[in-house]
Amino acid sequence: MKLATLRDGTRDGALVVVRHDGAAFVRADDVARTLQAALDAWTSTEPGLRALAQRLDSGAVEGEPLDVRQLHAPLPRAYEWVDGSAYLNHVRLVRKARGAEPPPTLETDPLVYQGGSGVLLGPTDDLVLPDPDWGLDFESEIVVILGDVPLGTRAGDANQFVRLITQCNDVSLRNLIPNELAKSFGFFQSKPATAFGPFAVTPDELGSAWRDGRAHVRVRSTLNGRVVGDTDAGPEMHFSFFQLLEHVAKTRAFTAGTLLGSGTVSNADRARGISCLAEQRMIETIEQGKPRTPFLRAGDRIDVETLDGTGASLFGRLSQTVRAPA
Amino acid sequence: MKLATLRDGTRDGALVVVRHDGAAFVRADDVARTLQAALDAWTSTEPGLRALAQRLDSGAVEGEPLDVRQLHAPLPRAYEWVDGSAYLNHVRLVRKARGAEPPPTLETDPLVYQGGSGVLLGPTDDLVLPDPDWGLDFESEIVVILGDVPLGTRAGDANQFVRLITQCNDVSLRNLIPNELAKSFGFFQSKPATAFGPFAVTPDELGSAWRDGRAHVRVRSTLNGRVVGDTDAGPEMHFSFFQLLEHVAKTRAFTAGTLLGSGTVSNADRARGISCLAEQRMIETIEQGKPRTPFLRAGDRIDVETLDGTGASLFGRLSQTVRAPA
Repeated sequence: MKLATLRDGTRDGALVVVRHDGAAFVRADDVARTLQAALDAWTSTEPGLRALAQRLDSGAVEGEPLDVRQLHAPLPRAYEWVDGSAYLNHVRLVRKARGAEPPPTLETDPLVYQGGSGVLLGPTDDLVLPDPDWGLDFESEIVVILGDVPLGTRAGDANQFVRLITQCNDVSLRNLIPNELAKSFGFFQSKPATAFGPFAVTPDELGSAWRDGRAHVRVRSTLNGRVVGDTDAGPEMHFSFFQLLEHVAKTRAFTAGTLLGSGTVSNADRARGISCLAEQRMIETIEQGKPRTPFLRAGDRIDVETLDGTGASLFGRLSQTVRAPA
Repeated sequence: MKLATLRDGTRDGALVVVRHDGAAFVRADDVARTLQAALDAWTSTEPGLRALAQRLDSGAVEGEPLDVRQLHAPLPRAYEWVDGSAYLNHVRLVRKARGAEPPPTLETDPLVYQGGSGVLLGPTDDLVLPDPDWGLDFESEIVVILGDVPLGTRAGDANQFVRLITQCNDVSLRNLIPNELAKSFGFFQSKPATAFGPFAVTPDELGSAWRDGRAHVRVRSTLNGRVVGDTDAGPEMHFSFFQLLEHVAKTRAFTAGTLLGSGTVSNADRARGISCLAEQRMIETIEQGKPRTPFLRAGDRIDVETLDGTGASLFGRLSQTVRAPA
C-alpha cells in the first residue's frame, strides 16, 4: 500500500491512498484525516486504507490523477526526525573531507542525530538558499516511519514497529558543520528542513527487498538531469534499522509517526556513484588533490528516486530546485 | 492567562484554562481541543481562552478543583524541543566536571541542542531509571512555547513569536554524555524524555519580569524536601530567548508549538545553590577534591517551582519521583 499527503491548505494536509503505479489517488478522509491520525490508530485505520488501495489497484475505482506537485511530505510536520549514519563508507569519506577522524566505536556504536521535525519539505519544494557560501548539499536516504516504540525495545522485536518506508533528502549546509560540531552539541544550523516522499509505503510493497531491517533497493540521485549515484541501500547499511531502533530506544520511548533515517546511502564501489556531493568532493580530493564539484547553487535540481529489483519507482520522484530567497 | 493539559485518555490530552491561583480549571474544548490546536490558530483561539480565564478569575464561574496529578505536560508531544544552554556559569562548571573545555565562542555563539519531543513527561510523571549507573540528573529550566517562526527571524522581532512560558526538568543521564559527545553528533541516549509544566502562561502573567527576552524570576529546585537551589533566571541568561530564537531560525523555520529552553538556570553566586546535581558535584570537587553528592536514585524526589517577585508560583509545582522500571 502506498500513502501520500495532499496539500489542502491545512498544516498537516489530507491523507490519500496512491495507486500502485503512482499515477492516481483516492482520498482517505473517511478513514483518517491525516497520516499522523492514521498512524496514531493504525490497528483500526490500516484495514480501511488497505481496502481503498485494493479498490484502486484493482480498477474498481478510477481515482484522481496524481501530480506529485500536489503533495506535501507524507508527514508535513512530525514529532521526531531521528537520523542514523549507518553507511560507514559515507562516514569515513565525509569525516576525511573535513579532516576529522571517525569515532573509534564506528563499527559497534551507531551514529544518530536528532533532526528538526516541525517544518519538513515536500518532495517538490524548492531548496531556499540564503547564502551560497553555506555549502548546500543533498543527502539521499531511506527512512522508516514508526508506530509507538516502547522504551528498551530490542532489535529482535523492532520489525513490528516499522509501519511505512519512504526516502528523504537530508539537506545539509556543509560549511556550517565544522564550527557547529566543534561546540559538541551536534548539528543545528547546519541541518535546514529535510524533504521527504512523495510516497510512504508499507513494507510489503518492497517484498523480499525488505529483510534484516534493511531496504535492498537502489537509490538513484540525479543532479541537473545527470545520474550521479545509483547506490545499493542494502548490504552496506552496517547497522540495520532494527539496530538503530534498539540504539535510540535505550533510554526513551517514541510516538507513532517518528521518522528514522538510514543516513546517506553509500557504497565502497565508486562505480555506484554518490548520494551526496561531500563524498564526490572527497573522492576528487583523493584522486586529483582538490574538489572540483561545487556545492549546490541557485538553479540546480536534485532528483531522488528509489527503485526495486524490476526498476519500478517505490516512493515516486523527489525533485527539488535550489533558489535564492524571494 | 494560565493554560494546562488534562489527561483524558487521548494522546494529546484536553486543553484547560487554569485559575490565576492554580487551584481550579475550566475545560476549553469549545475553543480548542488541545493546546497544539490552540497554538495552530492562536489569533482566533486566544480571545476565547482569555474570555474563559476572565470568567474564572473573576469568580463568574467556579471551575473544577485542580489536582496537578491530573495534568500532562502542556504539550504531551511537541513538534520540536530545542534547548539552549544560555547560563554560562552552568556551561563552565559542567564542562569542567567532565574535563572538557568550553568552546572558544562561548560568549558569542549560543549553544543549542535538538531534543526529542515525541514523548514528553507530565509534571508529576515518575522518572523511570533502568540503570542507576547512567547518572540521572535533573536540570531546572525556563521554556518558551513559540508561534510560527519564519526562517531568518531576528532577535529584534522575536518577542511576537513567544506565545507561552513554562518550566521544565531537562532530564540528563550524565554518565552517558562523554561517550556520546565524543562521537560529535550531540546528545541522544543521554537525554531521556523531558518533563514540562504543570502550567504554561502568557507572558503578561510575568508582568515586568518578562523583559529583554528573559524571565526575571526565581527557579527553586527542591530535592527530597530540601531546597538545593533558588536561582535567578534573569540577568545571567547570557543569550536571551530572542537571541536564541535568532540563532536557531538562521537556516530554518519553526512550527507553532515549538518548545525553546533556556538551559539550566545557574548563578555565579554559590549562595543561590544549583539547578542540577552536576554543578553541585563540580563545586564539591573544586572545594573538597571529589564529588560527595550522588546522582538521583530510586526513591528520590525532585520538585521545581518558578516564583515571581511576590513569591507566587507561576507555573505550578513540577514534582517527580525516581523509580526503577516495573
